[in-house]
Amino acid sequence: MAIETALTRRLGLSVPVILAPMALVSGGALAAAVSRGGGLGLIGGGYAEGDWLSEQIAHAGNAEIGIGFITWALARNPDLLAVALDRRPRAIFLSFGDLRPFAPAIARAGIPLICQVQTLHDAEIALGEGASVLVAQGTEAGGHGGGRSTMALVPEIADMAGDVPVAAAGGIVDGRGLAASLMLGAGGAVCGTAFFASRESLSHAKAKERAVAASGDETVRDALFDLVRGRDWPTRWTNRTLRNDYHRGWSTRLHTLREQMTEQRPRYFAAQEAGDMDVAATIVGEGVGLVRDIEPAGTILDRMVAEAEARLRNGGGDFIGNG
Amino acid sequence: MAIETALTRRLGLSVPVILAPMALVSGGALAAAVSRGGGLGLIGGGYAEGDWLSEQIAHAGNAEIGIGFITWALARNPDLLAVALDRRPRAIFLSFGDLRPFAPAIARAGIPLICQVQTLHDAEIALGEGASVLVAQGTEAGGHGGGRSTMALVPEIADMAGDVPVAAAGGIVDGRGLAASLMLGAGGAVCGTAFFASRESLSHAKAKERAVAASGDETVRDALFDLVRGRDWPTRWTNRTLRNDYHRGWSTRLHTLREQMTEQRPRYFAAQEAGDMDVAATIVGEGVGLVRDIEPAGTILDRMVAEAEARLRNGGGDFIGNG
Ligand SMILES: Cc1cc2nc3c(=O)[nH]c(=O)nc-3n(C[C@H](O)[C@H](O)[C@H](O)COP(=O)(O)O)c2cc1C
Ligand SMILES: Cc1cc2nc3c(=O)[nH]c(=O)nc-3n(C[C@H](O)[C@H](O)[C@H](O)COP(=O)(O)O)c2cc1C
Repeated sequence: MAIETALTRRLGLSVPVILAPMALVSGGALAAAVSRGGGLGLIGGGYAEGDWLSEQIAHAGNAEIGIGFITWALARNPDLLAVALDRRPRAIFLSFGDLRPFAPAIARAGIPLICQVQTLHDAEIALGEGASVLVAQGTEAGGHGGGRSTMALVPEIADMAGDVPVAAAGGIVDGRGLAASLMLGAGGAVCGTAFFASRESLSHAKAKERAVAASGDETVRDALFDLVRGRDWPTRWTNRTLRNDYHRGWSTRLHTLREQMTEQRPRYFAAQEAGDMDVAATIVGEGVGLVRDIEPAGTILDRMVAEAEARLRNGGGDFIGNG
Repeated sequence: MAIETALTRRLGLSVPVILAPMALVSGGALAAAVSRGGGLGLIGGGYAEGDWLSEQIAHAGNAEIGIGFITWALARNPDLLAVALDRRPRAIFLSFGDLRPFAPAIARAGIPLICQVQTLHDAEIALGEGASVLVAQGTEAGGHGGGRSTMALVPEIADMAGDVPVAAAGGIVDGRGLAASLMLGAGGAVCGTAFFASRESLSHAKAKERAVAASGDETVRDALFDLVRGRDWPTRWTNRTLRNDYHRGWSTRLHTLREQMTEQRPRYFAAQEAGDMDVAATIVGEGVGLVRDIEPAGTILDRMVAEAEARLRNGGGDFIGNG
């Protein structure tokens, strides 16, 4: 079983799936499982906290993983890039911020640079910095993102990317989404939500349960949980999560929430720790409606690829007459 | 050349493309062109204004077109449904509102009912009313729509639709999008933006020029132009348009705009009439970045289908190794 594309060739993968570097969720074990399945597993370096990253790199053992960062957070702790490069990662994945301070060091190390973008303008900059792969991220994605949707963003970015392979991100959870990504002109997909509730994921067990139960209609993209957690995200990127009781209670009263932050923030972190998902955010995308079980990442990946392969093979047979 | 799906079989089409019933844009000539090309051309009955509809039905001549309505507007002028049914349309397309008052008469007439939905909840209702086809509309669509995106909405609705064919709407402009729709589990696509700037489209020549020039990054979904035009849309559906000078100037000052409506509304309609697109809305979706020419609708349709067919045929060949 194998699907070969410009993306798999560029990164040396046997299947065209990249695990999203989900902050505090994509740890070493999950990244290793996806890499062992033939995809590219990325550790979610996220807010650039050094101890967590080193620990997760250790957990990945000798698997050929890559590492992702939230670019504006890396800019506050830039030395962490060297820690990542020392591991000889299969790739560095940057998203959400100015990649120009980091691209040269990554190039010097000879590591492929994967740039996740939300607009054509971002894509232009990333191409100018010599990105090895562009990830076109649609607003249906879990976690942070912009306003454009995957369906039209991917072909538009593919048209400007020339020889640089493009991966699609946002709403791709099963073999249908993966096959659709290839039809749109991408060479593969970046999947977060699909693996959020996997066995190896570091998300809370209660969050996994919520993900399995939820429909795609139940997500919302905004800044409420960033405000509560004190993550000062640039306003152009908002956070897609499930709507829960806490969100319903506060989303129209942000001003009051701001005033009560000294009580609310500790309350929030306690709920997160305890797995009280009526308060804490379950960070998933619209594709969560297609997540129906807690399974090993390898099982999810194998099924996604097998389904995509079957659809691609039958594309002609199912739909095309002999006219 | 032919692509056969559950959707084409249900509606008796030779290609799996439905022209969106764009209010005041999809007239008789455009609908006829798409139907003659093997798809389903729908006249945009829109805000249910009787004279316009009768005129456009006449323009369609003997082509096998269908007719679409904005459901909440039809509820204000329900007699127009009889005018539409008298034409023996190939289908009635309803979107944006409660279809329950209309479904029985359409069923009695033996006309297929196509229901455009934006959420799983909508889809459930439409299935309960005996919809012949569900259209899963993503937020990237031009004109009015909801918050979910095409990529994850289509497979999730396909999973609940059972034997009822699903069409994908939102962001589908070329053969890549059409092929992707089929991979997602849809039996075809509903396309508005792709035909907005076609020769036969009734949109203003200056609006067509804007559409050809714009990138997908330049659209916005909100209620500003509905406010100015005095279209009292239910708040759950907002309107995707290009961002223009007028939008930039007023979008953060809606309160003041409301106060100045006696001057602003006539000014807006004069601009619309004159084709002053710095003021008047160009109503298109994110796929507008893939619209690069003003062409006959038949040319657009033929290319879309040929491209999709080529991609589907090569799906195996391009991507799948012999492993
Ligand atoms: C729980 C979660 C955390 C995420 N954290 C990050 C992150 O730290 N850095 C990043 O670049 N992207 C992050 N993302 C976004 C992913 O890179 C990716 O765009 C997204 O998961 C793709 O959409 P999908 O969730 O529908 O698969 C996160 C996504 C999720 C679901
Ligand atoms: C100019 C314009 C007018 C529209 N008017 C209507 C309408 O009157 N009734 C309707 O059901 N949908 C209307 N739509 C939405 C379409 O039905 C459809 O969902 C949309 O065009 C699909 O997305 P796309 O624009 O990316 O192809 C309109 C779309 C556009 C672009």
